[in-house]
Amino acid sequence: MAQALRHDAMRAGNLAVVLAALDRRGPLTRAALAETTGLTKTTVSKLVGDLIDAGMAVESGTVRDGERGRPGVVVRLSGHRVAALGLEINVDYLAACVVDLSRTVRLLRTQAVDNRAASPSDVITRLGELATGMLADAAGLGLSVAGAIVALPGPVDRSTGTVHRAPNLGWRDVAVSELLALPLPVLVDNEANLAALGELWFGSGATLGDFLHVSGEIGIGAGLVIDGALFRGAHGFAGELGHVVVSPDGPPCRCGGTGCLERYAGQDALLHPGEEIADFVARLKAGEPSAEAACGRAGSALGIALTTAVNLIDPDTIVLGGIFAPLFPWVSGPAEEAMRKRLGQMRARVPALVVSRVGADAATLGAAGQVIQRIIADPGAFLLDPQR
Amino acid sequence: MAQALRHDAMRAGNLAVVLAALDRRGPLTRAALAETTGLTKTTVSKLVGDLIDAGMAVESGTVRDGERGRPGVVVRLSGHRVAALGLEINVDYLAACVVDLSRTVRLLRTQAVDNRAASPSDVITRLGELATGMLADAAGLGLSVAGAIVALPGPVDRSTGTVHRAPNLGWRDVAVSELLALPLPVLVDNEANLAALGELWFGSGATLGDFLHVSGEIGIGAGLVIDGALFRGAHGFAGELGHVVVSPDGPPCRCGGTGCLERYAGQDALLHPGEEIADFVARLKAGEPSAEAACGRAGSALGIALTTAVNLIDPDTIVLGGIFAPLFPWVSGPAEEAMRKRLGQMRARVPALVVSRVGADAATLGAAGQVIQRIIADPGAFLLDPQR
Repeated sequence: MAQALRHDAMRAGNLAVVLAALDRRGPLTRAALAETTGLTKTTVSKLVGDLIDAGMAVESGTVRDGERGRPGVVVRLSGHRVAALGLEINVDYLAACVVDLSRTVRLLRTQAVDNRAASPSDVITRLGELATGMLADAAGLGLSVAGAIVALPGPVDRSTGTVHRAPNLGWRDVAVSELLALPLPVLVDNEANLAALGELWFGSGATLGDFLHVSGEIGIGAGLVIDGALFRGAHGFAGELGHVVVSPDGPPCRCGGTGCLERYAGQDALLHPGEEIADFVARLKAGEPSAEAACGRAGSALGIALTTAVNLIDPDTIVLGGIFAPLFPWVSGPAEEAMRKRLGQMRARVPALVVSRVGADAATLGAAGQVIQRIIADPGAFLLDPQR
Repeated sequence: MAQALRHDAMRAGNLAVVLAALDRRGPLTRAALAETTGLTKTTVSKLVGDLIDAGMAVESGTVRDGERGRPGVVVRLSGHRVAALGLEINVDYLAACVVDLSRTVRLLRTQAVDNRAASPSDVITRLGELATGMLADAAGLGLSVAGAIVALPGPVDRSTGTVHRAPNLGWRDVAVSELLALPLPVLVDNEANLAALGELWFGSGATLGDFLHVSGEIGIGAGLVIDGALFRGAHGFAGELGHVVVSPDGPPCRCGGTGCLERYAGQDALLHPGEEIADFVARLKAGEPSAEAACGRAGSALGIALTTAVNLIDPDTIVLGGIFAPLFPWVSGPAEEAMRKRLGQMRARVPALVVSRVGADAATLGAAGQVIQRIIADPGAFLLDPQR
């Protein structure tokens, strides 16, 4: 089949059209697929056969097609064979997940580790070990992993697989895709962008309209989703919320500026050195004044930065993710108060703050989800790969 | 012709296709128009005839069609009959312009007047007088004005022709379209959005890639142009650069917040009360220290707000317009310095600051240009209007 496809761009395009219809519209009969796609029933039947052979679709039950029609066999997208690997390098953890073609999360693992203490190549070697273990476990589940994307805490060059600068890791121009050397295609992307996509595909994103997703980690990033797509800016560097200037004479930031949001609301400004987020939440639940005061300061600073973001980009909703998900009860009030005070006179409605439904896993899930999007956009490329 | 068109949506669509081709590609023969649009030569000839009858196109000279072809008559878009009215209400002036279908500026007038001292209905009455005079002068030039858009310094509801809130005018929920009562369709839009479009169509916009256009007036607004289109945000309120928080504990702003950019870099923060911009520029040229210091403070504050804008939306280029055009030599240096200091470590290239080529007229021109866009998108609607 690979040979035939290689010389048939139209057939590759038609495979994508049929798979996209199954993904977007759910289970359909071959007749309904023909109607939806405008392809003939004969063509659809052949393409569905190819997708079933490739493990991307399965038959599941029958329905009556229309009121008087004969019962038709329903075809649906299948997650039993094709999958994607999502990876994340962040300042104090590594994470990996395997998501199948139906966007079901099959495996998810996180390793707490201070990556600031290690060299880039050591961190990438450790991520490679985590990824290799995930690939073996995925194979044990009968899954064939088509590709991986690595989420990184800084601006990246997606075409070369390089992170330009990750100030909170102390990295500059690290060729992550090349160093990772996994036996499958590996791309990179910015973790805040991927976290927004993670919320869109695995959280409450589909119901939110245009939303800004805020990723609270050691650094703070944001991703803006407009009409179901990520807004990346002219060079792919949009959404650097952590370096929005909250107070120009404030403390110096690792980016070279001063008074950036990260210095007031990043994880290092909230937690004790080495403290886990769960322990900080425990202190908050116990009503410890210093922990509550830290959240108050962080929430106010976040509200100022979000006021600025709303003035510039005007989203429907703002989703607080990463550490701001568990801290939502303590951070959202002060942030909302700052926004209402500054935006309330100019706008009939101040954008709602809502809690992320995927939290700290958003970027890793978004990375895998982005690979799934690529497979669905071009299943022919996957079917043609001689490795599969 | 109107009756025939009324029942022929396809013909209206085809008229738009042909006019858009003349607008985008310049003069073409009927044969080249047929090839470009995919319509038959007979259909194109009929549509071109209708456009010529309506004064939207003219024949102008001949060219050889291809190497061996017979000479063909060239048709081009014509500005001799159809035109648009751009209007602007700002804090200390009213402005109006007439732009013809070929985007040539035919008339442009500005009235310096302090609109804060007058009621909304008085201001709108005065704008109506200015507009009526322009319509008479346009008629004298043989121009038929198809519609008007009013640029307003605040968030608007374009569907109802209302400005929600113009804090620097002290206006709230003013139904501008209704009150203006001109004998042609009148829409409203935000002046910073229209100024960005004015720069795109009448300034250097076409060469700038994705750009952020900053409108310095009493208030400061911005418009983001991405892929040749305006980014408006979820509710049409994006680009409120003037209310980006430069210093959260700074002086109170009319928006209800504190330390907004407008308080440091708006016209009232720079000029003496009642002073004209030309007089302020004269003081700067004479090297007056207090004027230079005011520009230094404004430039630094602008640089901080633009750092934040670059971090969030990542444009290729930033265009300084409105009063920042004549003040560019004194404001751009401090702004660039603040941006370089804060952005230089994170990005290989800090977006360039360039001076607007249309300056204070950008919003008025953008308003007329937006009407021209609407006519070109649907010339049938214009041809059908019984008033014409």
